[in-house]
Amino acid sequence: MGERIDGRIDGRGSGALRKVRLYRSVLRHPQGSALIEMGHTVVLVSATIEEQIPPWLRGQGKGWVTAEYDMLPGSVSGRSQRGKPSGRSQEIQRLIGRALRASIDLAKLGERRIVVDCDVLDADGGTRTASITAGYVALREAVRTLLESGAIAEDPMTTSISAVSVGMVDGEILLDLCYEEDSRADVDMNVVATGAGDLVEVQGTGEGNTFSLKDSQSMLKLALRGMDRLRRAQERCLESPAAGPRRLI
Amino acid sequence: MGERIDGRIDGRGSGALRKVRLYRSVLRHPQGSALIEMGHTVVLVSATIEEQIPPWLRGQGKGWVTAEYDMLPGSVSGRSQRGKPSGRSQEIQRLIGRALRASIDLAKLGERRIVVDCDVLDADGGTRTASITAGYVALREAVRTLLESGAIAEDPMTTSISAVSVGMVDGEILLDLCYEEDSRADVDMNVVATGAGDLVEVQGTGEGNTFSLKDSQSMLKLALRGMDRLRRAQERCLESPAAGPRRLI
Amino acid sequence: MGERIDGRIDGRGSGALRKVRLYRSVLRHPQGSALIEMGHTVVLVSATIEEQIPPWLRGQGKGWVTAEYDMLPGSVSGRSQRGKPSGRSQEIQRLIGRALRASIDLAKLGERRIVVDCDVLDADGGTRTASITAGYVALREAVRTLLESGAIAEDPMTTSISAVSVGMVDGEILLDLCYEEDSRADVDMNVVATGAGDLVEVQGTGEGNTFSLKDSQSMLKLALRGMDRLRRAQERCLESPAAGPRRLI
Amino acid sequence: MGERIDGRIDGRGSGALRKVRLYRSVLRHPQGSALIEMGHTVVLVSATIEEQIPPWLRGQGKGWVTAEYDMLPGSVSGRSQRGKPSGRSQEIQRLIGRALRASIDLAKLGERRIVVDCDVLDADGGTRTASITAGYVALREAVRTLLESGAIAEDPMTTSISAVSVGMVDGEILLDLCYEEDSRADVDMNVVATGAGDLVEVQGTGEGNTFSLKDSQSMLKLALRGMDRLRRAQERCLESPAAGPRRLI
Amino acid sequence: MGERIDGRIDGRGSGALRKVRLYRSVLRHPQGSALIEMGHTVVLVSATIEEQIPPWLRGQGKGWVTAEYDMLPGSVSGRSQRGKPSGRSQEIQRLIGRALRASIDLAKLGERRIVVDCDVLDADGGTRTASITAGYVALREAVRTLLESGAIAEDPMTTSISAVSVGMVDGEILLDLCYEEDSRADVDMNVVATGAGDLVEVQGTGEGNTFSLKDSQSMLKLALRGMDRLRRAQERCLESPAAGPRRLI
Amino acid sequence: MGERIDGRIDGRGSGALRKVRLYRSVLRHPQGSALIEMGHTVVLVSATIEEQIPPWLRGQGKGWVTAEYDMLPGSVSGRSQRGKPSGRSQEIQRLIGRALRASIDLAKLGERRIVVDCDVLDADGGTRTASITAGYVALREAVRTLLESGAIAEDPMTTSISAVSVGMVDGEILLDLCYEEDSRADVDMNVVATGAGDLVEVQGTGEGNTFSLKDSQSMLKLALRGMDRLRRAQERCLESPAAGPRRLI
Repeated sequence: MGERIDGRIDGRGSGALRKVRLYRSVLRHPQGSALIEMGHTVVLVSATIEEQIPPWLRGQGKGWVTAEYDMLPGSVSGRSQRGKPSGRSQEIQRLIGRALRASIDLAKLGERRIVVDCDVLDADGGTRTASITAGYVALREAVRTLLESGAIAEDPMTTSISAVSVGMVDGEILLDLCYEEDSRADVDMNVVATGAGDLVEVQGTGEGNTFSLKDSQSMLKLALRGMDRLRRAQERCLESPAAGPRRLI
Repeated sequence: MGERIDGRIDGRGSGALRKVRLYRSVLRHPQGSALIEMGHTVVLVSATIEEQIPPWLRGQGKGWVTAEYDMLPGSVSGRSQRGKPSGRSQEIQRLIGRALRASIDLAKLGERRIVVDCDVLDADGGTRTASITAGYVALREAVRTLLESGAIAEDPMTTSISAVSVGMVDGEILLDLCYEEDSRADVDMNVVATGAGDLVEVQGTGEGNTFSLKDSQSMLKLALRGMDRLRRAQERCLESPAAGPRRLI
Repeated sequence: MGERIDGRIDGRGSGALRKVRLYRSVLRHPQGSALIEMGHTVVLVSATIEEQIPPWLRGQGKGWVTAEYDMLPGSVSGRSQRGKPSGRSQEIQRLIGRALRASIDLAKLGERRIVVDCDVLDADGGTRTASITAGYVALREAVRTLLESGAIAEDPMTTSISAVSVGMVDGEILLDLCYEEDSRADVDMNVVATGAGDLVEVQGTGEGNTFSLKDSQSMLKLALRGMDRLRRAQERCLESPAAGPRRLI
Repeated sequence: MGERIDGRIDGRGSGALRKVRLYRSVLRHPQGSALIEMGHTVVLVSATIEEQIPPWLRGQGKGWVTAEYDMLPGSVSGRSQRGKPSGRSQEIQRLIGRALRASIDLAKLGERRIVVDCDVLDADGGTRTASITAGYVALREAVRTLLESGAIAEDPMTTSISAVSVGMVDGEILLDLCYEEDSRADVDMNVVATGAGDLVEVQGTGEGNTFSLKDSQSMLKLALRGMDRLRRAQERCLESPAAGPRRLI
Repeated sequence: MGERIDGRIDGRGSGALRKVRLYRSVLRHPQGSALIEMGHTVVLVSATIEEQIPPWLRGQGKGWVTAEYDMLPGSVSGRSQRGKPSGRSQEIQRLIGRALRASIDLAKLGERRIVVDCDVLDADGGTRTASITAGYVALREAVRTLLESGAIAEDPMTTSISAVSVGMVDGEILLDLCYEEDSRADVDMNVVATGAGDLVEVQGTGEGNTFSLKDSQSMLKLALRGMDRLRRAQERCLESPAAGPRRLI
Repeated sequence: MGERIDGRIDGRGSGALRKVRLYRSVLRHPQGSALIEMGHTVVLVSATIEEQIPPWLRGQGKGWVTAEYDMLPGSVSGRSQRGKPSGRSQEIQRLIGRALRASIDLAKLGERRIVVDCDVLDADGGTRTASITAGYVALREAVRTLLESGAIAEDPMTTSISAVSVGMVDGEILLDLCYEEDSRADVDMNVVATGAGDLVEVQGTGEGNTFSLKDSQSMLKLALRGMDRLRRAQERCLESPAAGPRRLI
């Protein structure tokens, strides 16, 4: 697939990601935190360790990772309602939780729970996939504190995880859709993969349109290429010094 | 892919559907209704026409199709709680709604809403895909009443829609997983397609496992073969006389 | 009271029940289940044993029987809202619970709870009384499994229970009102009794009308005659082989 | 039935009411209000006129009367939870509403709603029947203001309404049970009747016990005698001058 | 500050309280109760002892005092909605709780909770301050029962607490505003103080207006003078015999 | 009052503010937005214009300003629960709304509503006062867009508004308490004032302690001095160029 320069709103090629900025340790209280910017989309993520697990998991010697996702009222045009999670939010937070659990051996985590909170500060499409990519960084930080404190002896994390969207717009397959592209897309697919390039989750939908087996294959290939670049951004972020709360302003 | 007889709980081949029974017109009040049995899974579906559409759609001359999904308390082992839809239920009913809207030209439906209620009477895996397959039949019936009454002049339905699950269990790709197979699956994928074999929605997840591009292709192919058989069951059901409420007992 | 043939919508005599069909063991998961059809009214009932009792009963060596009642959205004309139980539903499920508890010695049940779920699939009047009549069959089945497994040594059930409605329409006392008769009734009375013909609960209301002591006596007498026939239907059902899930379609 | 002096907690005869005090116009804001004391049970009732009716009644030229019932936290031993109405409360307020609507020709009320709020200040059994008896007085007051202001030309009230409980305790039929008697009762019956002695509602329940046709007849007769005295108390209250807010302390 | 006679709705001087009536032991069930009338404002307060404390306080050997506040639907013009506490109610009940806790040494109370329920029967301004003034009396009564039963050995109450409102209306500082004055006030201040005249809480607000440091000083001084008189009313009430439930009517 | 250097956690004098950073236009969608940092406390504020007002204000030609306040789960130690606003949150958002309405002539705003959302990203005490100080900047920005678009002709804003906390810790009066100081404070007071130094709201509370008239005067004076500096920070922020979304990372 050639990366055409023309046609995309911000001049990107069809297979190009938006500008990615990724910071870690941006909050004082949670054990892990990250801030991600993908183009105009900004998501703040925290990972908090709780030394209690849900009742249904007790006594199995296993831990749990769960996620919550919400949009700040000012993150969208026309203000979103504050309060109970919508069906959309619940669907997204279940996806984020499943994706992050694929990066960790829950038995090695011990009987504790890590809650990953993803709050969208500014929304321009791709907020769920950005949440997963930054969520991995925050989770990695939280697990580090467990290792450093000696609470767990062996690193439970088995792989990195990232996510990206891909879609078909006017017959062309595009990577990392912004809001306007997403609104016009015939098919929209969110893909989660490990750092090794193995698929973890595929959610493709063509509301009002259909797509072929071959289309699905092409979209997945492009998404995997994009996630390879996200993996490198995660590695750079985790190797660089903590951003500190100062990065929030 | 060879259809192995051994290995499946009920002796099916890996590419075989469970026994499908599909009835229509099983309720007296709704304009459309259907009952589907896929193995032990039983779902009762009704389609009710409401001459009002949600506020955000008013004045556009378009209709809407929405779905609700719930499980009766006695449909599962240990009784499910009655009441507010869980995150899982909301995710499923959003999927059913999107799938069914792919079968219909909403502009031709006029400013009305069809609500498709899917209630699981007995659950043995595949309840969301069974809901879509039977939901199409109930929706088709409801639309027929609009055509017969002259409320709409032109048939808004553009295709049939069905759905099926496919998964990887012990390295083998299996069609139409029952509950026990689903519990042991490494990868679980729900696929929705049109009667013409075009993909409408793909949701594949490997909680605790990963899958390759090639695996995804093989799973989609097997799912499409299964849905071809479901399409024929839908056609037979819609051509046969109404079951009538008597069919419920 | 003569049983007049003329006058009733379906040609019944004033003291005749609608056609009753009653099946048991219609679901795979719950310990007890039943399906009842009284004319067009269809109710699916399950009885699930929970080895925990409410906190306020703990430590007394007694069990508890409780009921939940809901209508499927497609069971009525115009679709009923799904979700939280209405005031009407709560009133009905409290009635069903009280009625079924009258059939059982809670001390002999041991510290466990049986939840009887009544879901109306199709509604044509008399859904609360049909729920009680079928609820007894499901409860009886669930208790049998406790006896057969040796969980309890002595049968805690002391009597059978059934229920029926009776009402005054245009000055005439009618048994087992269908929806249309109920809508036109001057007085509506729901009566619960034991198999021995003793009264357990009487709820008579004349919204917009009144009735005399003598009317109340006549209505109760007719109701008791109707419940005698329901008792026989319950006995036949419990003696016949299990319907099996197949009966649902 | 002889009125035995011995045996009742407060020395009453079996057919005697507790001491009844009934005041009207005890609040400044609502159009009607009443305070009733039956023994230790104290209920404060207000009747507020709203010039809007529920959507489902609009355009029919008819009014509506509805009731709400709650217990103040301090009205019972151990404090009742404040907040959402329980199933019991909802059942009671539906009963109060039905009972009061039997006293009024809704067509003559015009398109307005009267809300009757019943708040139990101190509870010693019989709160629902006391609410109905005082509710009639408050409703009567509210309707008077409509007549006096000329909002309606013709008196819509067709009868007075009162209510009382009756029960079987240790084989004896007792009128107007206090809490302790109610706790020990084998059968508990709440009866609503018009001033002319016609029955409006009968709710008899024998949790854990049964009763005969003859018992039901005896209980109804005793209840009607009690309500005849309540009718006179209502008449005296409505003829006497307004108590004024001063009566509250 | 001169106390002008003219200008106030009821002819009071600017520094005069409304007529105060305060009764105790007005309910049978709670360990403490009080009824206060300040002009037309009537609040019924109960104090219930619970031998359990909130989880976050367990094991510290300390008790807790909390308050709930609500208005009966008929206490205001146009009827207030029953149900969940509004933001205003929550704010008020938090204030009442803080104020009452200032009167008691929680360590000496032992691990138990006293819940003070304040229900407004008739509202004419100043309901939150009246609730605090009567709340102290009910709390004092409940603590007395603990002392009398020997449940606690040492009196935990360290001071009395009362509260009053003060405001600026048309440039003049007025004590104890009734509803109509409150509606027209430029500044409204609620003040809580101990019997010794020390401030416990000050909440002054000038919606749509502002006030100076000097104004705040003058308002606080007048409030302290008013509370000195409330302290005396509390003392008289606590020394006089119990009103008994009879006082409610 | 001398500004002592010793004694405060961060070496500030008793009358010194923490380091204040204030940015505007930090979000793309809302008409106004601001980010404030006071020491470690970080609050993101947006102001959204809605061309509808609440029903109770319609037809009066006036506008409305309302506020919502919430803390992100990761803003505090131990993670705060997401979801419905707590009593504390509701109290705070009512305070913010009242404070901001004091800065604006609602009649000149026209029939529209401005919603000011305050979300705490990192909490170290003083979040409600920081919300008010930044809320004024966001509100000012939103009103500017109305003036620039010609939607309103005359500037409705009549003054600037800021807020700060002051308290007594170990007998010393301190300005702008951080979380640790706030936890140890004997008296805590939140003060809102206009740019001209007039008081708008005073909320002083001494949970477990009391304070004198003289203390209240000293605290108010110190708070007014602090707010004079906040006013200057607001002026500088509003005169400087927009920070742009880039400032968020």
